[in-house]
Amino acid sequence: MSEGEGIGRAKSTLDTATIIGLLIAFALVGAAIVVGGSPDSFFNPPSILIVIGGTIGVTMVCFSLGEMLRSGQLIVKTVLYKTHDASAIAVQSIQIAEVARKQGVLQLQGVLESIKREEFFHKGLSMIVDGTPADEVENMMIGELEAMAGRHNKGANVLRKAAEFAPAMGLIGTLIGLVQMLGNLDDPSTIGPSMAVALLTTFYGAVLSNMVLIPLAAKLERNSDEELLVNQLYILATASIGRQENPRRLEMMLNSILPPNRRVQYFD
Amino acid sequence: MSEGEGIGRAKSTLDTATIIGLLIAFALVGAAIVVGGSPDSFFNPPSILIVIGGTIGVTMVCFSLGEMLRSGQLIVKTVLYKTHDASAIAVQSIQIAEVARKQGVLQLQGVLESIKREEFFHKGLSMIVDGTPADEVENMMIGELEAMAGRHNKGANVLRKAAEFAPAMGLIGTLIGLVQMLGNLDDPSTIGPSMAVALLTTFYGAVLSNMVLIPLAAKLERNSDEELLVNQLYILATASIGRQENPRRLEMMLNSILPPNRRVQYFD
Amino acid sequence: MSEGEGIGRAKSTLDTATIIGLLIAFALVGAAIVVGGSPDSFFNPPSILIVIGGTIGVTMVCFSLGEMLRSGQLIVKTVLYKTHDASAIAVQSIQIAEVARKQGVLQLQGVLESIKREEFFHKGLSMIVDGTPADEVENMMIGELEAMAGRHNKGANVLRKAAEFAPAMGLIGTLIGLVQMLGNLDDPSTIGPSMAVALLTTFYGAVLSNMVLIPLAAKLERNSDEELLVNQLYILATASIGRQENPRRLEMMLNSILPPNRRVQYFD
Amino acid sequence: MSEGEGIGRAKSTLDTATIIGLLIAFALVGAAIVVGGSPDSFFNPPSILIVIGGTIGVTMVCFSLGEMLRSGQLIVKTVLYKTHDASAIAVQSIQIAEVARKQGVLQLQGVLESIKREEFFHKGLSMIVDGTPADEVENMMIGELEAMAGRHNKGANVLRKAAEFAPAMGLIGTLIGLVQMLGNLDDPSTIGPSMAVALLTTFYGAVLSNMVLIPLAAKLERNSDEELLVNQLYILATASIGRQENPRRLEMMLNSILPPNRRVQYFD
Amino acid sequence: MSEGEGIGRAKSTLDTATIIGLLIAFALVGAAIVVGGSPDSFFNPPSILIVIGGTIGVTMVCFSLGEMLRSGQLIVKTVLYKTHDASAIAVQSIQIAEVARKQGVLQLQGVLESIKREEFFHKGLSMIVDGTPADEVENMMIGELEAMAGRHNKGANVLRKAAEFAPAMGLIGTLIGLVQMLGNLDDPSTIGPSMAVALLTTFYGAVLSNMVLIPLAAKLERNSDEELLVNQLYILATASIGRQENPRRLEMMLNSILPPNRRVQYFD
Repeated sequence: MSEGEGIGRAKSTLDTATIIGLLIAFALVGAAIVVGGSPDSFFNPPSILIVIGGTIGVTMVCFSLGEMLRSGQLIVKTVLYKTHDASAIAVQSIQIAEVARKQGVLQLQGVLESIKREEFFHKGLSMIVDGTPADEVENMMIGELEAMAGRHNKGANVLRKAAEFAPAMGLIGTLIGLVQMLGNLDDPSTIGPSMAVALLTTFYGAVLSNMVLIPLAAKLERNSDEELLVNQLYILATASIGRQENPRRLEMMLNSILPPNRRVQYFD
Repeated sequence: MSEGEGIGRAKSTLDTATIIGLLIAFALVGAAIVVGGSPDSFFNPPSILIVIGGTIGVTMVCFSLGEMLRSGQLIVKTVLYKTHDASAIAVQSIQIAEVARKQGVLQLQGVLESIKREEFFHKGLSMIVDGTPADEVENMMIGELEAMAGRHNKGANVLRKAAEFAPAMGLIGTLIGLVQMLGNLDDPSTIGPSMAVALLTTFYGAVLSNMVLIPLAAKLERNSDEELLVNQLYILATASIGRQENPRRLEMMLNSILPPNRRVQYFD
Repeated sequence: MSEGEGIGRAKSTLDTATIIGLLIAFALVGAAIVVGGSPDSFFNPPSILIVIGGTIGVTMVCFSLGEMLRSGQLIVKTVLYKTHDASAIAVQSIQIAEVARKQGVLQLQGVLESIKREEFFHKGLSMIVDGTPADEVENMMIGELEAMAGRHNKGANVLRKAAEFAPAMGLIGTLIGLVQMLGNLDDPSTIGPSMAVALLTTFYGAVLSNMVLIPLAAKLERNSDEELLVNQLYILATASIGRQENPRRLEMMLNSILPPNRRVQYFD
Repeated sequence: MSEGEGIGRAKSTLDTATIIGLLIAFALVGAAIVVGGSPDSFFNPPSILIVIGGTIGVTMVCFSLGEMLRSGQLIVKTVLYKTHDASAIAVQSIQIAEVARKQGVLQLQGVLESIKREEFFHKGLSMIVDGTPADEVENMMIGELEAMAGRHNKGANVLRKAAEFAPAMGLIGTLIGLVQMLGNLDDPSTIGPSMAVALLTTFYGAVLSNMVLIPLAAKLERNSDEELLVNQLYILATASIGRQENPRRLEMMLNSILPPNRRVQYFD
Repeated sequence: MSEGEGIGRAKSTLDTATIIGLLIAFALVGAAIVVGGSPDSFFNPPSILIVIGGTIGVTMVCFSLGEMLRSGQLIVKTVLYKTHDASAIAVQSIQIAEVARKQGVLQLQGVLESIKREEFFHKGLSMIVDGTPADEVENMMIGELEAMAGRHNKGANVLRKAAEFAPAMGLIGTLIGLVQMLGNLDDPSTIGPSMAVALLTTFYGAVLSNMVLIPLAAKLERNSDEELLVNQLYILATASIGRQENPRRLEMMLNSILPPNRRVQYFD
C-alpha cells in the first residue's frame, strides 16, 4: 500500500548500463590518476568548487530555482531506472482487457490490487472501475503524460545547458590560474605545480561535461522515450477497457505504436 | 495612479534565480582570484575596455543604435523580473468574468482599480468597459503582444550576437598582447607579467560570454515565454468578458493554453 | 534629374550604427596597439597580403568574378546606407493615393517630380501615369524586387564565406611563420620577433572575420530586410493607385505587412 | 540449407572500399610512426585503455547493454559487406514474376531453392507459395524492413556518439598526463617522455574518431541505404507475384524506386 | 562528329574565377614561404603523403571505390568549366522553336548539326525529329537530369567529407611528430626542426581543406546549379518543340524558371 513512490518508479528496474558505463569510465580515469603517482594532486577543492559551483550557478541563471530542483530529482530517477519491457506490459494489458470483457469492468477490483505498483495504470483503471467515463479518464491520463514529457524535456535541457557551461567554467578557472602563475614567475620551482593546478579546472570541466552531463542527457532522453511509450500503452489499454472494446482490437492498437521488434501476438 | 511603469513590470517579482545564480558564479570566480594572492592583477582597465567596448562596438554594427538602446532596457527588465504565476492569473480572470457576467460589464469599474498594476489587462478591460467592441480590443491587444514578442526576440538576438563576439574580442586582445610581448623579449622578468596581461582579455571574453551573455539570453527567452503566456491569458479573458461569454467556457479556453501542470479548476 | 543613382541609394541615409560601431571597435584595438609601445610591429604588409589576398582568392573560387565585383558594390551601398522610415513612406503613399483618387491618376504628374529620388516608386508610378495596366506594373516591380533580394542574398553569402576563410588563412600564415622560425632557432634573439610576426596573420584573420566580415554580413541582412520591406510598400501603393482603390484599403494593406510598432493610422 | 546467416549477409560481398581505405590510412600512419624511429613509444596500453575503454563506457551510459552488443554485430556486418547490385536483383525479380505468371505461383517451388541465399526474399516468396495472402506477406515484410532500418539507425547513432566521446576521452587522458608531469618537474630529463605519453591519448582519440568511428558511421548509413533499397525491391516483387500482376507493371514499379542510373529495361 | 565529349563539356567555357582564385591564394602562400628563406623545409613528402593519402583513404571508407573515381572526374569537369549563359540558350531555343513551328519538325535536321556540341539538347531533339513522342523524350531527359543532379551531389559530398578529414589527418600527423620529438629531447638542436616538420602536416591539412576542398565543393554546387538550370531549359524547349507549341508560350515557360535578371524578351 506504499503509494508514496513517484510515477514510473514502481514499474522500473535499475538501469545497469548507466551504472556499469560510468563505473568503467571513472575506474579507468581513476586508475590512470593513481598509477601516475600522486592522486592527491588531482583533488583540489577550490578547483572543484569553481567548476561544479560555477556550472550550477550559471545554469541556474538560465532556469528558475524550482525548475533546477525538480529537474535534479527527475534526472536521478529517470537516468538510474529503466521501465519494464513494453511487450510484457502489452500482454498484461490484453489479459486484463479479456477479464474485463468476460466478467465485466467491476470484476477488475481484484486485478487493481495486482497492478498497484504500476501507479499510472492503477490510477486510470481505478477511475474506470469507479464508473468515470472512458473519455474523461483518457483525457486526464493524456494530460498527465504531456506534463511528464514536459518535465523530462526540461530535465534534459538543464543537463544539456550545464554540459555547455562546464568546459567554459573549466577554461575560466584555468585562465585564472595561468594569470596568477605568470604574474609570479620569480620562484621557478612553483611554475610546474601552479600550472598543474591551473589545468585541473579544465580537467574537471571536461570530465563533468563528457563523462557525466552529456551521457546522462542522452540516457534521460532514451529512458524518457521508453517510459512515455509504456504510459501510452497504459492509456490505450485503460481507454479500451473503459469502452469495453474487443481485446483483439486493443492488441492491434497496441502493436501500432510498439516498435516492430516489440510487437505482441497474444491471439494465435 | 503611477502609470509610468513599463508593460510587465507592474505584475512582476524579482527573478531570484538570476540574481542567486550570478552571485554564486561570480563569488566563486572572485574567491579563486582573491585566494590566489594578487587580485589587482585581474583588474586591467584597458583590457576590460577592449573586450566590453569592442563587443559593444561590433554588436552595434549588426544592429541600429535605437535597437541597441531599447534592447538594453528590455534585457534588464525581462531578465531581472519574473511574471506572476499563470494559474493565479487564470483564476483571477475567471473571477472577474463571473462578476461581469452577473453584474454586467459596467460594474467592472471597481475591478479596474484592483488590476491597475496589470497594465496590459487594465488597458484592455478599460476599453471593454468604455464600450469598445470585443473584437477591436482583441485585435489591439494581439498587435501589442506581437510587438512585445518582436522586441523580446530582438533583445535575445542582441545578447546572442554579443555572446559570439565577446570571446573573439578576447582572442584579439590576447593576440595584441602576445605580439607586443614577443617583440620585446629582452628583459625576461617582464615576460610573465606581460603574458598574464595578454591572457586577461581572453579571460574577460570567456567570463562575459559564458557567465553573463549566454545565460541572460537563455533567461530572457524563458521569461519572455512566460510573460507572453500571461498576456495571452489576459487577451483571452478580456475578449471573453467583452463578449459576455460563460466563465466556464473561459476556464476551458485558458486551460487549453496553460501547460498541463498549471491548469486550473475553478468550477468544481 | 540625376537618375544615375542606384536603386535604394536615393532614399537612404548614412547608417551611423555601422560607422560608429566600427569606429569604437577599431579605435579600442588601435589604442591597445599604440599604448603597448611599438605600433609598427603590427603593420606587416606580407602578412596583411596573405590574409586579405588569400581570403579574396579562396572566396573567388566559390563564386564567379562578376558575382564578386557586383557583391562588393552592393555591400558598400547596403551596409553604409539605411532606408527611410517605413512609417513615413506608408503615410506618403497614402497621401499620393488620396490625390490620385480625388484628382485622377493623370494629376500625379506633379507628384512624380517630388518622388524623383525614390527611384523604384518613381519608375512604377510613371508607368501607371503612362497608362500601363496596374497588374503589369506590379509584376514588373515584383520581378525587380526578387532580383534585388537575390543580389542581397548573394552579397551576404560572399561575406559569410569570406568570414569563414579569413581565420583559416590567418592560421595558415601563422603555421608558415612557425615552421620558418622553428627551422632556424640558432639565433635565440630572433625567436621572439619571428613568432610575433607569425602570430600577426592569426590576428589579422580574427580582426577581418569578427570585426568586419561577420558584422557587415549581419548588417547587410538587416538593412536588406528593411529595404525590401520599403519596396514592398511601394509595390502595394503603386498597384493600389493603379487600380484606383480606396486609400483606406491601401492603409489596411500597408499595415498588414508593417511590423506592429511601425503601423500607421492616417485616417482618424 | 544453412539458414543460420543473418539477413543481408547471404546476398552480400565484401566491401573492398572499407578495407582498402582503412588499410591505406593506417598503413600511412603506421609508416610515419615506424620511420620516425621508436614505434614502441606509440604503444602505451594504459593510454589505449583509457581512450577505448572510456569511450565504450561513456557511450554505454547513453544506450543500454543490449543495444551496444546488437549494434556491434550489426556494424561489423553492414560495414564490411555490401549488398548485390540493385539492377541485377530487379531483373531477377522480373524473371521470377514471369515464371509465376506463366506457370502459376506453385511452380515457384523450384525457384525458391535458387534464392535460398536471399533470405528475406526467400521467406516472403515461401509464404506466397504456401498460399498466404499477398497483403499479409507484404505487411510482414514491411514490418521486418522497418525493424531493420531501426537497427541500422541505432547502430549509426552508437558510432556517432562514440565518435564524439573519443576525442574528449583523449583530451581527458592528456590533461591527466600533463598535471602529473607538471607536478613533478624536478628531473628535466623526464619532461619530454612524460609529455609524449600525455599526448598519446589525444593521438588515440583523434585516430579512433576520425579514422575509424566517423568513416564507419558514414559507410554504415551508405550500405544501410543500399540494403534497404534492395529489400524494398524484394517487397515490391513478392507482393506483385502474390497478386499475380503483370510483370511489366512490376518493372515499372521497381524502376520508380531505383535511382535513375540503376533503372532496368527488361521488356524491349 | 566528335561525340566523345561528356555531357556539359561541349557547352562549357573555362571557369576563370576558379583558376584565378586558386592562383592568387597559392601564389601568396608560396611567396610567403619563399620570402621566408628555406622553401625546402615546406616540402616534406612523408607529411604530404600522410595528409593527402590519409584523407583519400578515410574518405574512401565513407563511399565506394567506383563513387570515388566517378566523383573525381566529375569534380574536375564541373569545377573547371562553366556552362553557357542561360539567356543566350533561352533565345537560341526560342529560335529553333520558331523554325520548327513554321517549317515543321522535320526541317530541324539542319539545326541538329548546329547544336551538335550541346549534346543533351541534341540527343533530345534528335529523338523528336525521329518521331519519338514528346512525353517520352521529356521523361528520358528528366531521368538523365536527375541522374546528373545525383552525381553532382555525390561529388560535392565526397569533397565535403574530405574537407572534414584533411585537418584531422593533419592533427594526427602533428601528434605523431610531437610524440617522436618529445621522446628524443637529448639533442636540443633537433627540437626546432623536428617540431617544424611536425607542424607541416597541420599546415598541409589546413591548406588542403580551406584552400582546395571547401572552395571546390562550393564551386561544384554553384556550377552544378547553373548546369542543371541550362539543362532544364533544354528539356522545356525540346518538349515544347515536340508538342508543336507556340514559341511565345515557350518564352513564357523559360522565363518562369530563369532568375529575374536573366529573363529574355524575344518577341517584341
